[in-house]
Amino acid sequence: MAAKHVMVIHGCNLDLLGRREPEIYGSATLEEIDEQIVALAGELGVEVRSVQSNHEGEIIEAIHGCGGWADGIIINPAGFTTTSVGILDAIKGVGVPAVEVHLSNIHAREEFRRRSVIAPGTVGQICGFGANSYLLALRALSERLGD
Amino acid sequence: MAAKHVMVIHGCNLDLLGRREPEIYGSATLEEIDEQIVALAGELGVEVRSVQSNHEGEIIEAIHGCGGWADGIIINPAGFTTTSVGILDAIKGVGVPAVEVHLSNIHAREEFRRRSVIAPGTVGQICGFGANSYLLALRALSERLGD
Amino acid sequence: MAAKHVMVIHGCNLDLLGRREPEIYGSATLEEIDEQIVALAGELGVEVRSVQSNHEGEIIEAIHGCGGWADGIIINPAGFTTTSVGILDAIKGVGVPAVEVHLSNIHAREEFRRRSVIAPGTVGQICGFGANSYLLALRALSERLGD
Amino acid sequence: MAAKHVMVIHGCNLDLLGRREPEIYGSATLEEIDEQIVALAGELGVEVRSVQSNHEGEIIEAIHGCGGWADGIIINPAGFTTTSVGILDAIKGVGVPAVEVHLSNIHAREEFRRRSVIAPGTVGQICGFGANSYLLALRALSERLGD
Amino acid sequence: MAAKHVMVIHGCNLDLLGRREPEIYGSATLEEIDEQIVALAGELGVEVRSVQSNHEGEIIEAIHGCGGWADGIIINPAGFTTTSVGILDAIKGVGVPAVEVHLSNIHAREEFRRRSVIAPGTVGQICGFGANSYLLALRALSERLGD
Amino acid sequence: MAAKHVMVIHGCNLDLLGRREPEIYGSATLEEIDEQIVALAGELGVEVRSVQSNHEGEIIEAIHGCGGWADGIIINPAGFTTTSVGILDAIKGVGVPAVEVHLSNIHAREEFRRRSVIAPGTVGQICGFGANSYLLALRALSERLGD
Amino acid sequence: MAAKHVMVIHGCNLDLLGRREPEIYGSATLEEIDEQIVALAGELGVEVRSVQSNHEGEIIEAIHGCGGWADGIIINPAGFTTTSVGILDAIKGVGVPAVEVHLSNIHAREEFRRRSVIAPGTVGQICGFGANSYLLALRALSERLGD
Amino acid sequence: MAAKHVMVIHGCNLDLLGRREPEIYGSATLEEIDEQIVALAGELGVEVRSVQSNHEGEIIEAIHGCGGWADGIIINPAGFTTTSVGILDAIKGVGVPAVEVHLSNIHAREEFRRRSVIAPGTVGQICGFGANSYLLALRALSERLGD
Amino acid sequence: MAAKHVMVIHGCNLDLLGRREPEIYGSATLEEIDEQIVALAGELGVEVRSVQSNHEGEIIEAIHGCGGWADGIIINPAGFTTTSVGILDAIKGVGVPAVEVHLSNIHAREEFRRRSVIAPGTVGQICGFGANSYLLALRALSERLGD
Amino acid sequence: MAAKHVMVIHGCNLDLLGRREPEIYGSATLEEIDEQIVALAGELGVEVRSVQSNHEGEIIEAIHGCGGWADGIIINPAGFTTTSVGILDAIKGVGVPAVEVHLSNIHAREEFRRRSVIAPGTVGQICGFGANSYLLALRALSERLGD
Amino acid sequence: MAAKHVMVIHGCNLDLLGRREPEIYGSATLEEIDEQIVALAGELGVEVRSVQSNHEGEIIEAIHGCGGWADGIIINPAGFTTTSVGILDAIKGVGVPAVEVHLSNIHAREEFRRRSVIAPGTVGQICGFGANSYLLALRALSERLGD
Amino acid sequence: MAAKHVMVIHGCNLDLLGRREPEIYGSATLEEIDEQIVALAGELGVEVRSVQSNHEGEIIEAIHGCGGWADGIIINPAGFTTTSVGILDAIKGVGVPAVEVHLSNIHAREEFRRRSVIAPGTVGQICGFGANSYLLALRALSERLGD
Repeated sequence: MAAKHVMVIHGCNLDLLGRREPEIYGSATLEEIDEQIVALAGELGVEVRSVQSNHEGEIIEAIHGCGGWADGIIINPAGFTTTSVGILDAIKGVGVPAVEVHLSNIHAREEFRRRSVIAPGTVGQICGFGANSYLLALRALSERLGD
Repeated sequence: MAAKHVMVIHGCNLDLLGRREPEIYGSATLEEIDEQIVALAGELGVEVRSVQSNHEGEIIEAIHGCGGWADGIIINPAGFTTTSVGILDAIKGVGVPAVEVHLSNIHAREEFRRRSVIAPGTVGQICGFGANSYLLALRALSERLGD
Repeated sequence: MAAKHVMVIHGCNLDLLGRREPEIYGSATLEEIDEQIVALAGELGVEVRSVQSNHEGEIIEAIHGCGGWADGIIINPAGFTTTSVGILDAIKGVGVPAVEVHLSNIHAREEFRRRSVIAPGTVGQICGFGANSYLLALRALSERLGD
Repeated sequence: MAAKHVMVIHGCNLDLLGRREPEIYGSATLEEIDEQIVALAGELGVEVRSVQSNHEGEIIEAIHGCGGWADGIIINPAGFTTTSVGILDAIKGVGVPAVEVHLSNIHAREEFRRRSVIAPGTVGQICGFGANSYLLALRALSERLGD
Repeated sequence: MAAKHVMVIHGCNLDLLGRREPEIYGSATLEEIDEQIVALAGELGVEVRSVQSNHEGEIIEAIHGCGGWADGIIINPAGFTTTSVGILDAIKGVGVPAVEVHLSNIHAREEFRRRSVIAPGTVGQICGFGANSYLLALRALSERLGD
Repeated sequence: MAAKHVMVIHGCNLDLLGRREPEIYGSATLEEIDEQIVALAGELGVEVRSVQSNHEGEIIEAIHGCGGWADGIIINPAGFTTTSVGILDAIKGVGVPAVEVHLSNIHAREEFRRRSVIAPGTVGQICGFGANSYLLALRALSERLGD
Repeated sequence: MAAKHVMVIHGCNLDLLGRREPEIYGSATLEEIDEQIVALAGELGVEVRSVQSNHEGEIIEAIHGCGGWADGIIINPAGFTTTSVGILDAIKGVGVPAVEVHLSNIHAREEFRRRSVIAPGTVGQICGFGANSYLLALRALSERLGD
Repeated sequence: MAAKHVMVIHGCNLDLLGRREPEIYGSATLEEIDEQIVALAGELGVEVRSVQSNHEGEIIEAIHGCGGWADGIIINPAGFTTTSVGILDAIKGVGVPAVEVHLSNIHAREEFRRRSVIAPGTVGQICGFGANSYLLALRALSERLGD
Repeated sequence: MAAKHVMVIHGCNLDLLGRREPEIYGSATLEEIDEQIVALAGELGVEVRSVQSNHEGEIIEAIHGCGGWADGIIINPAGFTTTSVGILDAIKGVGVPAVEVHLSNIHAREEFRRRSVIAPGTVGQICGFGANSYLLALRALSERLGD
Repeated sequence: MAAKHVMVIHGCNLDLLGRREPEIYGSATLEEIDEQIVALAGELGVEVRSVQSNHEGEIIEAIHGCGGWADGIIINPAGFTTTSVGILDAIKGVGVPAVEVHLSNIHAREEFRRRSVIAPGTVGQICGFGANSYLLALRALSERLGD
Repeated sequence: MAAKHVMVIHGCNLDLLGRREPEIYGSATLEEIDEQIVALAGELGVEVRSVQSNHEGEIIEAIHGCGGWADGIIINPAGFTTTSVGILDAIKGVGVPAVEVHLSNIHAREEFRRRSVIAPGTVGQICGFGANSYLLALRALSERLGD
Repeated sequence: MAAKHVMVIHGCNLDLLGRREPEIYGSATLEEIDEQIVALAGELGVEVRSVQSNHEGEIIEAIHGCGGWADGIIINPAGFTTTSVGILDAIKGVGVPAVEVHLSNIHAREEFRRRSVIAPGTVGQICGFGANSYLLALRALSERLGD
């Protein structure tokens, strides 16, 4: 059977990882996280691509680009989490199952970070485990997509 | 008398039209909608240009670009409707009359889609008629601009 | 094919048109608006009737009366817009497609005028174009009803 | 001992019963419901009258008319439930015990239907049992009025 | 100089006065209140007419009827106070100065009675003095209208 | 045909009935209410069991226990009405039609008592008739279950 | 019979009258208003004293000082209207009937000016008639105090 | 190195799994889920115990019982999610890292299910993957606890 | 004269005292607190019993059990403070004066801890003094009960 | 060891005690309360001073005056409780531990009295015990200050 | 050209500066700040006076006193920021341009400190720069007043 | 000592300055403002760069670019002020002190413009002084950075 395809999308400011508020976000860089994802993907027989952008529009277009290639999306919407109806609509528009991840437990932080407008378009949410949130999401998607 | 100029601006995810949730948004593609707009514009003696973008910044700049050329704007802010103060300020900044359109009747949908932050900068709003929302807006602008 | 029938319903205070706050509502009287509607209806091959009332109960009954005759309703609920569950229920009850119109852009006015309780029962909304809001609604209905 | 008198008041749109959204409101007409009420009233030795109106003012006056005749009121305020302070004041004004009924379980429906402004003036509320809501109310009133 | 004309409008349930919750509204009937108004009007050289209705539509039309005759309006909107945008629009539509009165001090009662949607269209508000609220309003209007 | 089975569930503090705030809840004890229910059930050919608990967990388990035995549930959630998502989920989980009852008219009491989180899982609600609320609910269920 | 005593209390910034935003507050000075009050009081056989203060504490103590002398209070709480629980408690503490007045119609102004925390301790409210608000209040108190 | 200990806590109504709304919660029973957890725990070298209760008090005490034994907690608070300050305090009290899981994506469901009062006391949240939510949580905890 | 009886009720998680967040709740265990209470009670000539439970239902029943024995109740509702209508109703039901205590100053903590639903049924509240809150409450009750 | 110093601060309207709403505030005058405080202070070996003011500014300055003399503050902010950020800042500014007291149980009264803006700056709160609230606060402070 | 006059007004508790929460407000005393202001004023050719008060009434009167002397006001309303409509009205009343300053960045602090009721009457706001906030305000005013 | 570096960031629509609503934003163009900034920077011995963008993503990346070069940031977030968590996170991520500026006094404008989501990440805010807001911010930063 053909390998499953998963697109990993990192939202704004995640290119700062390792530098930005490490007591909240950890000391791994985005490259290191992507390497861990690729490693696990190899184990699970999944093909992954990843993209980071600080532009909501590029995130939306990355999601559009999933149509026809990706079987699943892992998205950390970061600073777009609480406002981007555009990302929500993009996910619903392409019809590819998406898992929302966050490095920190957003439900235990400031009030304004707790509510995701994107959640209603997603399969599930994993947050609070640092880089491991992505790995757990990959496992979850992989199992959901079956073989 | 010189022809009136109208700029048609399509917000984020509208490039997905025809693919995205057709039970809500209809099966016409954006190209087909633009063709209908051009056809009606011809009838009404109006010159139209259109642009689609998934980037709020490009929408803002398209509005800026209207100054000096366009006599009217038709804008479907889509996923930017409920949050973009930037688009509101751009419309007020260029001082060109704008009509807000939506394919679906946003006032009959989820709570968070019902309130447009852009409305206070517009002449009027037409929603719920699919692609026809644009055509009605074009007529409305055309009559408003007179000859 | 038989002509389509459209009922035009004008809510409270619209009998004052031409006298009332003309800087907001324009200087045309209701009779003049009705004449414009009739003229366009003739062009479109649609038969129209119109009624104005300051009584919510009469509006409700006018909607009831649409059952069996009208193929579409154009309603300007005016002062009943923000509170009348009765009008909403009447529209849903008779099952005739209705378009909501407003002379002014209610979404650009005082907070309390912006939310229509009637909207969830309607096909779409057109507001901000003065008397032209009705004409655009008539076109929208006419095209929706097809032939 | 003289028979007790009960006035049954049906609010707006209830004249549509049987035609209107039967999956919510059932297929019985208002006449059929009134017949069931009369039949049970006969069994219970209660004299009933009933009235339906789409006019809030007529409902208010029907309540006024209860003073001096009725020992109890059964009222389905329908579309007036969530806004009519006038009906609340009328009920408190005549001082006749009133029972509020609804065909559907309003507390399990849309948010805006759940709160009755009339409730603070009533003895109790019965909702969710279709036409039977009226019959249960009649039993409740009859027992409350005693003999 | 010609006498000034004042229209006195009593909202819903005020025909119950004397019978309804006398500990709140006092024991005077509406007729007795109207007589006191007429008596004071005589003293002040003002001509008054009065109307009571339980129908919002009739109140609206009574206000329309003021145009061309009345120099001032005294209105006790009663149960319509907190919801009737229609009455607000009527007052603003005819452009006749109106004074809002209430028998009880609505600001010291239940939360839902405290906010008048009609107030933004009025000259002032007098509440809490029973029948005397009307008399004070008549003096206020009379002095405002001057001679 | 076999008799229908109905489980009657009394929530917290109802074991105090007869002692607790009798001006609100009446002077009948819970035993007396249960006797009235049994008597009416006999008349209607229904078999009833009843349970009272001050423990949310026991209420939840009593509802679980209805699966396989009860054809209907009558529940007075009392102090659990406004917060217990657990009871709501239990009712939805067992799929047995439930009627919510309250001794007093909760919609005419303090704000915090008026909103039931349980209502969306129930067939209907009866409140304000003291012990009779249960009897009316039994009739309602009995008729709904038919024979 | 002995003359009635009325204390008139002017809140903060009212010493600016005549200078301050005359399009809202009129051009009369506080001295001129006090003279009008004294003149009417003479006519009505009432003895008045008046005090103005920009200090909430002095207002509170002026109210305390009413105990044993004043039969009624007229108070324009001005900038203290929306926050001073201290003034509310003072009025309730001395048990002297108080009438709240405002020069402008606070119910037609900015949202934050519309709700008086003082109102629940007063007999009634008169607002919107400029200096005449005080005179109407004096008449109202005088009649209420009777003779 | 000694095996890590993890306590798995299932909240109210989860004993219904397999029977209750399977379109939302899946068809696996709680026993089957526990077996999957035990199997994965074996693989990961973790010792697990599990408990289900419909009683908030028992959940609290199960958390207390974790002190001195468990190195981590996996908790599905179910119907207690949105209200139980007691469970939040228990988790903070014993100081054992806890992961919150939900079978369904609570952030994509009814408004009242979206906010967890327990979240501020937990390490992270995983929701929307059915029984797999527990397995992902076990992996997350296992990796977090290290070896 | 016979000694007064006081029931001391400790809510959920208080059995953790001494272990749980000592920087907020102090280092004394519940047993030590109970000993201090007993010692002071001896001084004051009051007989006390105490109970702790993590079960809302047991708290409710402990309150029921006060009827006929206790002259006063001291209750620390802990995690039930903000939600338990059942405890409020129990206190009102048995009619024994109750004092609410908290170890920490709940009014200086997180927003969600500040509002007690139980307060409307109590005589007073003492919070912020650690174990001493109970002792102060015992003095307060003792003096209130007099001798 | 030197005696501890405690400043007792009485907010606005407390000079009315004994006269003002005695069913809520009791019949003792402020002088009598101060005498009880002095008596208990003698017993506890504490030196007290007290001050009452209806001026927020004087309260603030009395708190400033505590710096360098007082070891503790007992404050009944009365009508300043719900609004005075100034008093909160003063308490935090001088860094002297303060206990907030109220004669009545503010948490069982009108909504607007329940929230203290001052609480976040205080050690604890005692309310509902009339004059005894002060005495309990004195004991609490005395024990907290130790010897 | 004559020197410009600027009044500097320091609100409540600012006399504590240097003592009060220095981690938030800095270690400079008010005298030192006033000296810095005077020094800069000298440089800019502006005459300044300054006043501090803990009494809202004195602040209001200081503002009144600006009429006829001051060309500009610098005000740090401190604890009066969020509630004083009186100060707002005073500023609007004297018609002298005012700049609002705060030592700390109020928009980055507790929710209740973020909204200034005074802002709508001011020219601009400067906050977060400690004593320098005043100096920047003085420059801003000086440049605004021109020469 | 080396010169300090300051990055000036202009948000969306600021490229319209001079054209856009000059009665609110003034007639200076962005180039003219930048020249004034450069001139003052020269005086203060600060090196400045400036950037304008209508793209939130470019603003975020401009902030990222400050790391390693800039000692301070001056940002006018314009239309992104009220929604951009991404900009807030970027500022916190690079750890460079930032000052928020606005041309107009946002606290005196429409409600939706008053709350900055960016403020919690900034040192201070200056608004209402037109182009001068930037110059004041530059002085503030320059003094804060010291030499």
